[in-house]
Amino acid sequence: MYQPRLETMPQEEIRKLQLERLKRTLAHIRDRNPDYHKRLGGIHPEDIKDLSDLEKLPFLTKDDLREAYPFGLACAPKEAFVRFHMSSGTTGTPVVNPFTRSDVEQWAEIMARCLSAAGVTHADVLQITPGFGLFNGGFGFHYGAERIGCFVVPIGPGRTLMQLKFMKDFGTTALGAISSYPLRLIEVAKEEGFDFRETRLRVGIFGAEVWSDETRKYIEEAMGIETFDIIGMTETGGVGLGIDCKAHEGLHVWEDHYLVEIVDPETGKALPDGEEGEMVVTTLTREGLPLIRYRTRDITRIISRERCSCGRTMLRVARIKGRTDDMLKVKGVNFYPRQVEEILMRHPETTPEYLIRFGKRAGKDFIEILVESKVQDETLRERLAEEIYNYLGFHAKVILLKEGELPRREGKAKRVEKVKE
Amino acid sequence: MYQPRLETMPQEEIRKLQLERLKRTLAHIRDRNPDYHKRLGGIHPEDIKDLSDLEKLPFLTKDDLREAYPFGLACAPKEAFVRFHMSSGTTGTPVVNPFTRSDVEQWAEIMARCLSAAGVTHADVLQITPGFGLFNGGFGFHYGAERIGCFVVPIGPGRTLMQLKFMKDFGTTALGAISSYPLRLIEVAKEEGFDFRETRLRVGIFGAEVWSDETRKYIEEAMGIETFDIIGMTETGGVGLGIDCKAHEGLHVWEDHYLVEIVDPETGKALPDGEEGEMVVTTLTREGLPLIRYRTRDITRIISRERCSCGRTMLRVARIKGRTDDMLKVKGVNFYPRQVEEILMRHPETTPEYLIRFGKRAGKDFIEILVESKVQDETLRERLAEEIYNYLGFHAKVILLKEGELPRREGKAKRVEKVKE
Repeated sequence: MYQPRLETMPQEEIRKLQLERLKRTLAHIRDRNPDYHKRLGGIHPEDIKDLSDLEKLPFLTKDDLREAYPFGLACAPKEAFVRFHMSSGTTGTPVVNPFTRSDVEQWAEIMARCLSAAGVTHADVLQITPGFGLFNGGFGFHYGAERIGCFVVPIGPGRTLMQLKFMKDFGTTALGAISSYPLRLIEVAKEEGFDFRETRLRVGIFGAEVWSDETRKYIEEAMGIETFDIIGMTETGGVGLGIDCKAHEGLHVWEDHYLVEIVDPETGKALPDGEEGEMVVTTLTREGLPLIRYRTRDITRIISRERCSCGRTMLRVARIKGRTDDMLKVKGVNFYPRQVEEILMRHPETTPEYLIRFGKRAGKDFIEILVESKVQDETLRERLAEEIYNYLGFHAKVILLKEGELPRREGKAKRVEKVKE
Repeated sequence: MYQPRLETMPQEEIRKLQLERLKRTLAHIRDRNPDYHKRLGGIHPEDIKDLSDLEKLPFLTKDDLREAYPFGLACAPKEAFVRFHMSSGTTGTPVVNPFTRSDVEQWAEIMARCLSAAGVTHADVLQITPGFGLFNGGFGFHYGAERIGCFVVPIGPGRTLMQLKFMKDFGTTALGAISSYPLRLIEVAKEEGFDFRETRLRVGIFGAEVWSDETRKYIEEAMGIETFDIIGMTETGGVGLGIDCKAHEGLHVWEDHYLVEIVDPETGKALPDGEEGEMVVTTLTREGLPLIRYRTRDITRIISRERCSCGRTMLRVARIKGRTDDMLKVKGVNFYPRQVEEILMRHPETTPEYLIRFGKRAGKDFIEILVESKVQDETLRERLAEEIYNYLGFHAKVILLKEGELPRREGKAKRVEKVKE
């Protein structure tokens, strides 16, 4: 729900609240987990006079969280846990985030705020398509919706034909999804002659993957909806850390719950507002797994700390450009998949389905960009290759595929394939 | 949670409460859904003087609910719905059960009672393996666990190896599952040399499928746990209608929420206590989809209306023997798959995996019973065929398969295959 007293608080008051809550979080860690307290250099809440003192504290990385599996950094006794969520763990030991009852409340509050910022009220019908279970997406929407009191269609992932049928049968007005899933819905709708304009759908809340402005525009036009970009992750306590409002001038971060810094991903040094860097998150109200200076690996920048035209004063960050760990280095050039996506999506002939394939062949670097296209046209192929060279500075082989040739996946989309020689 | 004031109420008081709530439900239907009211012959609450007057009302069938898709029998305005659950719909139009906020509370209450009857407290770790989503199993356990305050491992179905790993890593003490899933867990545990006795697991709460006493014994021995048989279905508002207590002398039905009759499945006539028939359920506290005399198709009998040794006074029914629609008629003989299962499971050589395949071949009825066995022994094969003839009265061809030969499925197990000529 919209909480104007909190969401429109003057920045000065937000800073005061953050300082107080940061101290409380440090005290909580000290009292509950001696090892974690030691990790922080044994710092005491009194040592923090100012938010800038935060810089004295060490960073926490995803590897640190992995090594702590399952409860090494947890700051509540196991009896206080009511559930947990977990990162997929496809690349090694998973990260487990245990929730106390108060953490579930906190999650419900920020998710309700996000839904509210996207204009969702108790009168809406919300179709929840991310999975319910260890992945936090489904339950995040679930708790937010419970707080708002809207009607939930708890369908979860997959079964795209049924998703479309339900949209009509239940009068869905709002859709929650992993950001590549609307592309699949649009594709199947086309095959089936299903027209989104004949539904009551008006809002899409998408996240969990980096999606370009061009993809966003494509989805909004194809579905006839307004979309909202939601951020948050297992480590921070699930989806709902922030979202854009109807002004769409950056993503508001719920600063009464989270303290955000932007740092140089190489040096770890704080960057001035406006400069692009890695987002570092400190949680201010979490009990189960409080985070101090967590390196999210998300690349963004602070857009503004001024009051937004929507009235909210909470700081705004740019949409996530990429993740430090999905930055690619090919032929000596660094770039993010989203930058390739932006170039491809400018051409109406291409579909949003693409794959960046790279690696070494016969000892030499190669990069291929496979993209589905409505036309198999040599001129288009050359134009795309040229634009990639102009914008990104490397030569890639562009391969045009027929629509539907790339495999579709449930859950997160695969956009990058590294080929081992 | 255990609610002694309600659960140990004298039967006379239960009857009074049921009469009052039945009238209230009829008034609710009359005020909210004129068509549904008409279906009931326009009956008014005042016409019901006694619970025996219930017999004047018509039955409601699964087909009636299907025809009402999605909200034809719903008794609340759509704005009051907060979610819904749905039967799988594999055999046609699904049944949709919309929940108001009060229905979710009711569900949480009865599920918390069920968990409590099985000895689960806030100190337990409950691994929830049924799916979360349209299927009601996962969310039923979820709401009950939230009320109890125990620690939930929200893993959902599948990923059996991970299930076993989590059991150890998170100290799972209670397992919620579709009743064939423990068989899969046991099988994989054997392959992996995983010993359930090295875990903290002590309670299993299983349902959604008919499982024989022999299968139950097999699971309890292999896992070293006490099991509880939970009943309930999408139509009645989800899992949690009843469960057995630690006395294991029948399943207590939560009579303050549900009124149960046992009728002759052919004639619809009420049967005296102790006689086997179809369970008919009337909901007493549901708002979204109140049921009047719903034919569940479950075959059971009333065991007792006396106070149980656990102190509960709520009536007890026998474990479900079968469903009227999975009664098989082969070579002129009626029987339930569970009866075949009971015979097979008496032999330690067989595994709990079997398939009844029947139909017509060259114009003649045939029936084959495929069962996995540790030994491929002609004597065993003949003995099984003989016992089936002795107990059930027909000649079946018994086929012994090697362990692992029958396909395994996520979700409900397939035990019957009808072959079309």
